[in-house]
Amino acid sequence: MAAPPPPAFDRARCAERLRREIALLSAPPYTADSDAVTRYAFTEPYWRTIDHVRGCLEEIGFEAWLDPVGNLIARNCAPGVRAVGLGSHCDSVRGGGRYDGILGVLTAIEVAREARAAGLDLPLQIVSWVEEEASGFGQMLLGSRIAAGEIDEAALRRDIRAIDDGRPFWEHAQQAGLTVEHVAHTAEVLNGMASWIELHIEQGRVLEDAGDELGIVTDVAGYVHADLWFTGQADHAGATPMDLRRDALVAAALTIAELERLARQAGSDAVGTVGELAVAPGVINAVPGEIRASLDVRATRSEAIDAILDGVRGVAERVGIEREINVRYQERQRLAPVALDGAVCAALERGAARAGARWRRMISGAAHDTMCIARSVPSAMVFIPCVGGISHSAAEDASPTDAALGVNVILAAVLDLTERTTGGGR
Amino acid sequence: MAAPPPPAFDRARCAERLRREIALLSAPPYTADSDAVTRYAFTEPYWRTIDHVRGCLEEIGFEAWLDPVGNLIARNCAPGVRAVGLGSHCDSVRGGGRYDGILGVLTAIEVAREARAAGLDLPLQIVSWVEEEASGFGQMLLGSRIAAGEIDEAALRRDIRAIDDGRPFWEHAQQAGLTVEHVAHTAEVLNGMASWIELHIEQGRVLEDAGDELGIVTDVAGYVHADLWFTGQADHAGATPMDLRRDALVAAALTIAELERLARQAGSDAVGTVGELAVAPGVINAVPGEIRASLDVRATRSEAIDAILDGVRGVAERVGIEREINVRYQERQRLAPVALDGAVCAALERGAARAGARWRRMISGAAHDTMCIARSVPSAMVFIPCVGGISHSAAEDASPTDAALGVNVILAAVLDLTERTTGGGR
Repeated sequence: MAAPPPPAFDRARCAERLRREIALLSAPPYTADSDAVTRYAFTEPYWRTIDHVRGCLEEIGFEAWLDPVGNLIARNCAPGVRAVGLGSHCDSVRGGGRYDGILGVLTAIEVAREARAAGLDLPLQIVSWVEEEASGFGQMLLGSRIAAGEIDEAALRRDIRAIDDGRPFWEHAQQAGLTVEHVAHTAEVLNGMASWIELHIEQGRVLEDAGDELGIVTDVAGYVHADLWFTGQADHAGATPMDLRRDALVAAALTIAELERLARQAGSDAVGTVGELAVAPGVINAVPGEIRASLDVRATRSEAIDAILDGVRGVAERVGIEREINVRYQERQRLAPVALDGAVCAALERGAARAGARWRRMISGAAHDTMCIARSVPSAMVFIPCVGGISHSAAEDASPTDAALGVNVILAAVLDLTERTTGGGR
Repeated sequence: MAAPPPPAFDRARCAERLRREIALLSAPPYTADSDAVTRYAFTEPYWRTIDHVRGCLEEIGFEAWLDPVGNLIARNCAPGVRAVGLGSHCDSVRGGGRYDGILGVLTAIEVAREARAAGLDLPLQIVSWVEEEASGFGQMLLGSRIAAGEIDEAALRRDIRAIDDGRPFWEHAQQAGLTVEHVAHTAEVLNGMASWIELHIEQGRVLEDAGDELGIVTDVAGYVHADLWFTGQADHAGATPMDLRRDALVAAALTIAELERLARQAGSDAVGTVGELAVAPGVINAVPGEIRASLDVRATRSEAIDAILDGVRGVAERVGIEREINVRYQERQRLAPVALDGAVCAALERGAARAGARWRRMISGAAHDTMCIARSVPSAMVFIPCVGGISHSAAEDASPTDAALGVNVILAAVLDLTERTTGGGR
């Protein structure tokens, strides 16, 4: 009944290889900073990293290439074979950490290496998606969104521009030697995969707090990014009695406090955050006349996101009416929640059980390329803990031993899924 | 019993002169900007303005000079005569308005001009205090605080530095040809005055809302400027469940809402404002880890200021304990409330009644040089309305006709006070 047991696995040796690779890629020339990882799309450190990864893949028998927009794709099987897809992204935020993204690519390589060492002929397709972090062109999940058909050519030619020099993505892609004019073919990467698994650091403290080594992600929360503007009247802080004020910051403060209550009320996986707050005129002796407060609202159910947003807009408007404050809401971006695939998750769960891992089902509150892939390919994600939940920072830290456990579990799942896909295993 | 009636006064003609002077001094070379008044201490537009004012004063028989720190002093009477002091300041904030400060100097000149035209020999000392606005050296009320003996020489030599080039006040004063080494003599300006009256725009909307032309200021509120720091933990906004957060902004928001309540509770003239709010890391998808909120708390009674501050610190600490947020309070500056002189106010009130003005007693929530002078010289202030309460902005607007009424009322008060001082009038 059960799939065959996974091959013998030397976790310590795998962890050591991962540790060495992480150390290598956390220093120049693979990062622009020496005290943090800064490696955003289409920069010199980025291409050096892609070249290194490509070399590692070719060394273990993969054919590797860049697609028209710069996603790195590598396969160890014939065209037409529907492989198990593995990977993540090699780009980082500016001033980021050693693990975010790259660990999912390095562990994918380890899965392939271990499979090969065990003499297993597993059809794999490893992908490093370009510009996941929005640090090069201001666009989160760019490579995977293009693959999912969500970005049109005109946007790449005109709207999406490099943060550093303002030139369009299109020009940068051409300059890098990519065949961006064939952008329509980018979607083909999805056809080559029967399933997809991405390993990533958690970027939160759920695993750490629970003492677990591994998370198997059942859902990726959707999110809305928006701004709330409160416009009152800027006044002299000394010369304006309390009763004559239209203080935009007090209105924003009342709304921020309510957002927390609304997010808690919406259920266990919903979150709501004001991360940016801009005050005008912003001097100690002036009553604030205008506030912009960003909104980041996430949940695994769209209804929960909408309930929080409706609630917070309602509170802001009520406060606004009471205080003669004009309130305006403007949405920046919306990404629907994604439920991951039950069968792929189950394969990972069996793998985790066999490996004797301390693991839990969990959700991802952070967005990942897997959100875009999961719409057409049965997908799952594996999280490993990161110290203190810290990410997007030089202080980001995680355990190569946990990552090696992830390799073991994913290898077992790949074997399981491949058996199932090819009709074996029963 | 009563003082003699004030001389005939042509309000329209006085208003027209004020309008012309304001127009002249609101354009280059008397301001660095052409669409706002930017004229801060020791800049070219500032010295040009001082020279112009000095010329006007000399034209009507005053002797004028700069004291060791740059206060412009002008007298129409022999040394030793204790004159009535009038004036304000010629400096502006960066991007400020046409009336703040300069109007008090121009109306002082008008009082002197009208007195002279009426053949009255009134001993006057007109002063334009240097650096009232903190825009040149970051120091509010600098010239009057030096005169009041509150700033020591070491601070001028070392600590107090130009915002633009970081060089000490001392160097700038020397470069401007001032005899700053005689700074100890600055206090002498106060000895020359038996009383002091400053006219200023209100910078609030109390007069406008009440439909009054003039305010006679009985008290200047004291203030405390401080910062509250909230330190929680920066986290990924998606990956950190609500229950694991230590959101510094929510803690600050709860405190800001309470500050409003505490200020209202403290009584009719108390105010509390958070005008600056700095968020770190300050990105849409991160839970704020650290907030700095400025505090501006004012009242005409020190006990009210302390009650509000104690209250707001208590709230912040309580919220901090509940939420594992570290709270730190740091005071920047404290100025005690000042009660103005009953006799000088009464002279102004008699003048206002005689002039048929619509006037009211009020407090000043804003700080003024008069706070420093009033400690040793019986002092009062006259406010005129400004449109919408707007000041420190190019949109600042006020009526030269109201200002001319102020001239009339102040002239009557000066006559009244001079009669009293010299033993006449009864």
